[in-house]
Amino acid sequence: MGYKYGVIGSGALGGFYGGLMARAGHEVHFLFHSDIEHVRKHGLRVDSKLGDFHLPQVHAYGSPLQMPKCDVVLIGLKSTQNHLLESLVTPLLHSDSIVLVLQNGLNVEQAARSFLGSTQVAGGCCFLCSNKVGPGHIRHLDYGRIVFGAYRGIDGKDTGPEAHRLEQIRSDMVASGIEAHLTDDLPMTKWKKLMWNIPFNGLSVLLDASTDAIMADSDSRSLAARISEEVRQIGCAAGCSIEPSYVDWVIDHTDEMVPYDSSMRLDFLHGRPIEVEAIYGNALQEAERCGFSAPIVTTMYQQLRFMASHRKASDGMVIP
Amino acid sequence: MGYKYGVIGSGALGGFYGGLMARAGHEVHFLFHSDIEHVRKHGLRVDSKLGDFHLPQVHAYGSPLQMPKCDVVLIGLKSTQNHLLESLVTPLLHSDSIVLVLQNGLNVEQAARSFLGSTQVAGGCCFLCSNKVGPGHIRHLDYGRIVFGAYRGIDGKDTGPEAHRLEQIRSDMVASGIEAHLTDDLPMTKWKKLMWNIPFNGLSVLLDASTDAIMADSDSRSLAARISEEVRQIGCAAGCSIEPSYVDWVIDHTDEMVPYDSSMRLDFLHGRPIEVEAIYGNALQEAERCGFSAPIVTTMYQQLRFMASHRKASDGMVIP
Repeated sequence: MGYKYGVIGSGALGGFYGGLMARAGHEVHFLFHSDIEHVRKHGLRVDSKLGDFHLPQVHAYGSPLQMPKCDVVLIGLKSTQNHLLESLVTPLLHSDSIVLVLQNGLNVEQAARSFLGSTQVAGGCCFLCSNKVGPGHIRHLDYGRIVFGAYRGIDGKDTGPEAHRLEQIRSDMVASGIEAHLTDDLPMTKWKKLMWNIPFNGLSVLLDASTDAIMADSDSRSLAARISEEVRQIGCAAGCSIEPSYVDWVIDHTDEMVPYDSSMRLDFLHGRPIEVEAIYGNALQEAERCGFSAPIVTTMYQQLRFMASHRKASDGMVIP
Repeated sequence: MGYKYGVIGSGALGGFYGGLMARAGHEVHFLFHSDIEHVRKHGLRVDSKLGDFHLPQVHAYGSPLQMPKCDVVLIGLKSTQNHLLESLVTPLLHSDSIVLVLQNGLNVEQAARSFLGSTQVAGGCCFLCSNKVGPGHIRHLDYGRIVFGAYRGIDGKDTGPEAHRLEQIRSDMVASGIEAHLTDDLPMTKWKKLMWNIPFNGLSVLLDASTDAIMADSDSRSLAARISEEVRQIGCAAGCSIEPSYVDWVIDHTDEMVPYDSSMRLDFLHGRPIEVEAIYGNALQEAERCGFSAPIVTTMYQQLRFMASHRKASDGMVIP
């Protein structure tokens, strides 16, 4: 018998991956927030470059208390909502459930780990361009790869879930058309992702610019590379030795991306909270723990915190 | 017989200081740009906390070619106009004229030095809150101190003007009600001013915030102090040993300032060029010359250059 899946946060990310798995015949239970009535009536719609699809009937819930116990809970919420995590996730858990946290940032799994056992938490990075464009309506623009693995805690001492169970999840994903990979070194995967997120998420908000505009200007392009290099150095100090040439890879790879607004910029423009602590604050905590000074990332962190707390009325406008 | 003064750039700064000197009976010749017809008809008006005054008749010119030779030429133009300096100043010069450059930033005197002898260039810092509020109409809000001295070139090898001539200028200023001081160490004065300008000018544009908003937020306040400290370290590397506690003085002093928009923010909001090269670029050149890495100031420089070249239509709006 296959795993039973729960999705907490059924938006651009959770709706997309959960939708693919439900389409493939897996039992997937979705928690919705404001979209619940719409989805109950009209189902879930995904426009995707992998092929559009519509699921007229999904297991949709407005409260976690109505949801069944699940073997795997995918966390598609933003980390800015992690203060709600325990109350949203606990009703779905049996003693052996695995919670797979698919959030940007470092040690975001700690929120789940605080109320779960050491063998229950996994984390992953999603390389995904996807937006929610309407109630129960996801538009997948590009990419989609997930790389996930055992979360071993801040000090690396947890065991994390058993390998064969993670492999089962990966296999279910792959069978659903998702490019899914396992990693035995989640921190390495996270730091490499941060080498993109920290420069491009932050600059897109601070400079009010899309990724392609940042790449097209020689100053911001050079700045993005300098920031990425500083992130690499923090990662190295934290024990993930990433070669210097990976900065070039990040920059070259960004050149090839579709013109695209970072999730942080979209959140900022829509007046939603931005993931400053998960992406910047937690990386800087790691830097501090290692005695590594990170002047540029600290500067961005302080600038972004200012921006987040001094949002202007006009910043809440929806972009076209 | 007293010195004859010329003012190139008769705006918030040149109009204020030149106006005070003309009021005191010095012979002052003003170059105006768009305001010339208005000033010819209505004179020059200065609202000042030192006392409002109106000069119904001033020596006002629309072209430097009509101006007489002057002993001292005060440069009140922004450094972003320095490509025009030679053509604007040359017609006023006799073989012994002194050009006193009152511009923000480091080595901004170099533009004058490029066409003047080594004994002819002086530079100064103005601690002044003053705006042009209409044609020929200056509003002086606060402060007004000038500290000036011989400009000795990038390598410090020029002699600069003779001390007794600078003393004569200072004495004329003081007799006009200006708080004027001489310095024998212009670079030290400049670096100390940069310890304010570099954090507060840049952050006011990057965070779209007034000085008091920057001071009221713990993140931006801490960031301003970190930036100021990095500027201090560049100054030290360049041979100006400024004690660490001067950062605290800058921050405390800013707390006591009237709520005030930096000149760079006003320029940015009015759609005028901003002095990124004079304030940031030249300081970073000095850092590079000394082999000093300045990660935060470099970051601000690159961010500001991006902002300056990607100005949005709405950024040109005039603030109330």
